[in-house]
Amino acid sequence: MDERLKKQIDFILEIDKEKNILRQTHLSGQGRQENDAEHAWHMAIMAYLLKEYSNEEVDIAKVMLMCLIHDIVEIDAGDTYAYDDKSLETQKEREDKAKERIYSLLPEDQKEILMGLFDEFEENKSPEAKFAHACDNFQPLLLNNSNGGKDWKLHKVTREKVYNRQKKTKEGSKKLYEVTDRILQKNIDLGNIL
Amino acid sequence: MDERLKKQIDFILEIDKEKNILRQTHLSGQGRQENDAEHAWHMAIMAYLLKEYSNEEVDIAKVMLMCLIHDIVEIDAGDTYAYDDKSLETQKEREDKAKERIYSLLPEDQKEILMGLFDEFEENKSPEAKFAHACDNFQPLLLNNSNGGKDWKLHKVTREKVYNRQKKTKEGSKKLYEVTDRILQKNIDLGNIL
Repeated sequence: MDERLKKQIDFILEIDKEKNILRQTHLSGQGRQENDAEHAWHMAIMAYLLKEYSNEEVDIAKVMLMCLIHDIVEIDAGDTYAYDDKSLETQKEREDKAKERIYSLLPEDQKEILMGLFDEFEENKSPEAKFAHACDNFQPLLLNNSNGGKDWKLHKVTREKVYNRQKKTKEGSKKLYEVTDRILQKNIDLGNIL
Repeated sequence: MDERLKKQIDFILEIDKEKNILRQTHLSGQGRQENDAEHAWHMAIMAYLLKEYSNEEVDIAKVMLMCLIHDIVEIDAGDTYAYDDKSLETQKEREDKAKERIYSLLPEDQKEILMGLFDEFEENKSPEAKFAHACDNFQPLLLNNSNGGKDWKLHKVTREKVYNRQKKTKEGSKKLYEVTDRILQKNIDLGNIL
């Protein structure tokens, strides 16, 4: 097999491991924990369907690819729970190391493209990155709300923390933020969020 | 919430169920069975990375979306194993019913788009559909090969059946078919395929 295709296949097999990285979110119906690959799949379809609510015009193919790859670094770095302050401190260092190792499996040109897309997501400045972040927040919010706010209760999440996180949703989509705000208020009223 | 957004969110929550539809393929490392959402995620990234090997020029965004949604009907219809002749007989009927129910949750315009994309995949005539089918075959082949052909052995799959299935790979990508052929020959030699 030629070297280029071999590298591409090595990368494809490596990312199979993302299916084993568990998140704190549970599947709808109070099922098991969701994994990163499932989350990314769900986010990419969601981004496509809700693109009309992005604050700015987006290249939706770019948003979808960004959604699909944004958690690959977690194969090495693990999932960092959004409300775990200690893990958040070391997140960038762990993910940078992972990024270099995993994307280096690819041919150079594709490494540059996917790493660039991941960096763009992390910087959160482009319209695509902002909308992808809105989807990254909105997807677990919908699941958690459908489960009666179980994950917020389990982790004793406070109103302050959850609203702080949701700032990014507003930057990507005012419309999705409106729905988010309504869902959060309901869960605060119900005592699911402290 | 307005009616349109409500419909979109209902659909998004409904497809969460795809994460519970198990396939016969096992994750690399002889892990648990893969589910449809993980398979679709993997296929979409694979399609993006291997697009240079498509026999015909493709709109890669369309291929990726096709990959992401191609198994949604299995939420109702269940996974039909590629080598289960009895299930294959009723597959179309089951999937048509599922398609109508699930996509009808969406606003009419988005229902038309996604159902159209699914039908295009099934008809397997456009360059995008053909390349998506090549990826649909190549993804489990890579996993199965990485697991020492475990799934072929388990289901006592024959050379004739597996080559019959792989015709679609050739229609989408001669290059990926070359690799497929080499992998199959190796697994025949090892006695993993009868």
